[in-house]
Amino acid sequence: MLDPQQLLSEYVGFPSVSTDPAYAEGMAGARQFACGVLEKLGFRVEVVPTPLHPIILAERGADRAWPHVIIYGHYDVQPADPISLWTSPPFSPTVRGRRLYARGAADNKGPQAVQFAALAQVLEENPDLPLRITFLIEGEEEIGSPSFPEFLKKHRDRLREANLVLLSDTGSPGPEQIVITTGLRGLTGLEVTVIGPRTDLHSGIHGGALLNPIQALCELCASLHAPDGRVNIPGFYDDVREPAQWERDELAKYPRTLEDYRQFLGVTQFYSAPGYSALEAVRFGPTLDFNGIGGGYQGEGSKTVIPSRAFAKITMRLVPDQKAEVIRELLENALRHRCPPGTRLEFAFKEGGSPYAVVPPGRPNTPPEQSPILARAFASADAAITECFGKKPLYLREGGSVPIIGQIKQQTGLDSIMIGLFTPEDNLHAPDESFSLDILDKGVATYAKILKALAAG
Amino acid sequence: MLDPQQLLSEYVGFPSVSTDPAYAEGMAGARQFACGVLEKLGFRVEVVPTPLHPIILAERGADRAWPHVIIYGHYDVQPADPISLWTSPPFSPTVRGRRLYARGAADNKGPQAVQFAALAQVLEENPDLPLRITFLIEGEEEIGSPSFPEFLKKHRDRLREANLVLLSDTGSPGPEQIVITTGLRGLTGLEVTVIGPRTDLHSGIHGGALLNPIQALCELCASLHAPDGRVNIPGFYDDVREPAQWERDELAKYPRTLEDYRQFLGVTQFYSAPGYSALEAVRFGPTLDFNGIGGGYQGEGSKTVIPSRAFAKITMRLVPDQKAEVIRELLENALRHRCPPGTRLEFAFKEGGSPYAVVPPGRPNTPPEQSPILARAFASADAAITECFGKKPLYLREGGSVPIIGQIKQQTGLDSIMIGLFTPEDNLHAPDESFSLDILDKGVATYAKILKALAAG
Repeated sequence: MLDPQQLLSEYVGFPSVSTDPAYAEGMAGARQFACGVLEKLGFRVEVVPTPLHPIILAERGADRAWPHVIIYGHYDVQPADPISLWTSPPFSPTVRGRRLYARGAADNKGPQAVQFAALAQVLEENPDLPLRITFLIEGEEEIGSPSFPEFLKKHRDRLREANLVLLSDTGSPGPEQIVITTGLRGLTGLEVTVIGPRTDLHSGIHGGALLNPIQALCELCASLHAPDGRVNIPGFYDDVREPAQWERDELAKYPRTLEDYRQFLGVTQFYSAPGYSALEAVRFGPTLDFNGIGGGYQGEGSKTVIPSRAFAKITMRLVPDQKAEVIRELLENALRHRCPPGTRLEFAFKEGGSPYAVVPPGRPNTPPEQSPILARAFASADAAITECFGKKPLYLREGGSVPIIGQIKQQTGLDSIMIGLFTPEDNLHAPDESFSLDILDKGVATYAKILKALAAG
Repeated sequence: MLDPQQLLSEYVGFPSVSTDPAYAEGMAGARQFACGVLEKLGFRVEVVPTPLHPIILAERGADRAWPHVIIYGHYDVQPADPISLWTSPPFSPTVRGRRLYARGAADNKGPQAVQFAALAQVLEENPDLPLRITFLIEGEEEIGSPSFPEFLKKHRDRLREANLVLLSDTGSPGPEQIVITTGLRGLTGLEVTVIGPRTDLHSGIHGGALLNPIQALCELCASLHAPDGRVNIPGFYDDVREPAQWERDELAKYPRTLEDYRQFLGVTQFYSAPGYSALEAVRFGPTLDFNGIGGGYQGEGSKTVIPSRAFAKITMRLVPDQKAEVIRELLENALRHRCPPGTRLEFAFKEGGSPYAVVPPGRPNTPPEQSPILARAFASADAAITECFGKKPLYLREGGSVPIIGQIKQQTGLDSIMIGLFTPEDNLHAPDESFSLDILDKGVATYAKILKALAAG
């Protein structure tokens, strides 16, 4: 049997930072480690090359009559910078209290250790477990999964044979309340550059003659919200479907008050669009956010320049039934229409993104009817979480986007069961990332129960 | 006699970049070179230490009955970056056509070579020239003259004995039309930072709950202009004095059309406040400009972050009788008053700046009456320019700020005669800076005439 803490300790020791070519060795190490674990568990392991970081595709169980689950995870991690803020070195796993500290401990190696260890336990009890399992472990999740759509297209027919996807790459408020994520927001965006004079100009000699591109950009960006906080783009809300009442009811059970949340954010007041509380807005509402802005002189002191150009990076989170392509075009058209006098605009688009906001049918009291195996999976997950964590899970949407979920649904029709195993205390993407050893142990027990229940079908 | 081209070639060979400590040797070299020239011309040279780059203070003529002129210049230059865009190396003077190419060739070593060579010529003819001259050559002009106010205070009584200041650190449209600069705009500003959540946040998980500081900053910045282009700060225009009719008439003679100017800027249309053409607006109107903006992720691709803060660098050009301190406070108050919900503001202020917009009394047909020597200086400058360049000078304000002019006026009461010797073709602060050898030669003849006329008083 695999010791999950031991397994996690080894796994996080490989610095698998996907965004930085200097970590190629760490990427290879983590990939080989995961392959080794799966081979020992009896999987046929393929390492599928991509233009950047290979995807691990591993399978067990040949009987086509067996239920078939895809388990998704990723072996890459965020950069550890700023390293000086870590209490212990980011790639030297250290246990303090009941937590294991390391980059990637929660995102996503801890949940993967849960899945590996649970499977080891179940296969030890029953080496002939009548369950087909396909592991899909990618190495580009932290950089937007650029190779995933192509991979999906190529392996679509093979993956389509499965009944569902199981993963743990979403969050829960804490070990006392696990969340099954019922939806994620979609994501689209663009970068807009305002171009004014042919070159940077001296703001003394030429100031007053022309529109400063920074001013034009600010006016454009400021135009994108109405005073009440709603997005001010014609048509933006046309396809928005209101959340179901059961979703609002479920959120009302959330073990964190608005005041807790306000203090966590560190703001003096919320700013959410009419009709949503802040906790609702981040799950049920679409947004337009500015992720970056830049132009002119940004160094120390001052330089009296009118810059030739200034840019903003804009992303929008989408809810059902908004469509990424449509919404992005609405934004682009609004910007073009509002382009201030004497300037012109250039656009850059990020490929990928998350085309769909997903709401899989796994909601309480309304088991999906189209797939008995999916229904059993939801029921077993609910029961296993209730038993192992001592409380029934909450069924909530999450505000983030896991692009691959939408892509899998689109390409294969498969729904995903997302069991939230990381918590706000885990410091994802930040210094001192850690994973709770309590959740690690209870997670293994939960996953073991789910796998057995699926096989028992 | 000094050959001005030879002198300029040697002077620009010293890479005297004041903003970069790596160029300390170049700064010392340029300083020693200028001191050497002045010593050979019989000056008593002092190198006055400052916290950063010393100021050269050099004097000739002990007779207090003689007219007394201060000649101002600066031995420091802008950085040469991006060096790859230079046709020949920036600190290896190269003559192409009738131009000498090098960083600092026009700003300000060319005009200084004019002054040195003219003086050498005049003193060769008459070694006992009855004229007191004080050279004031600073090394921090390109970084905002931070040490100059303290220097002025300390040497105020000594400088006050002079009758006027003569300098060439402003521009003319070309050698066919020299400008005597009759005014400069004042300058003040601040940096404002909008602070939102306690830390950068994931825009998926938290987007929709709070006001994004970039959005807040854009709304603040967009609020600072009215749709017609006027600055939208209560009280901003209260003290603005309209230019005199003669100033508009003089500008009408400007040898460059609005269409020329539009093409030079490379914009499809102007954006100037009502009541001013673009050529008038940059000289007669006050402005508020954004010199820099920054926040969030500015690298390649996208990072879905809600940043904790975002900032903008704002400067305002002032006209008579706006006061820097008053205007800056109006801006600060407007920003505080408009601070959006859930955010707070932090301000940083740049010391120095240019407290006054200056309009010295040297306008055509109305010679200053309070100082016969100043009147003679203006008359002789007008006559010398007309004779040497073949056309009467234009008397125009310039939109830039030369902070020391206002400070000298404030501390000593002295007016300045500003003869514009650089032109738009000189590429100031940009790659391939150059200085016209025609202007160099004609400038020497002009300055020689002025110096002789002053001494003849």
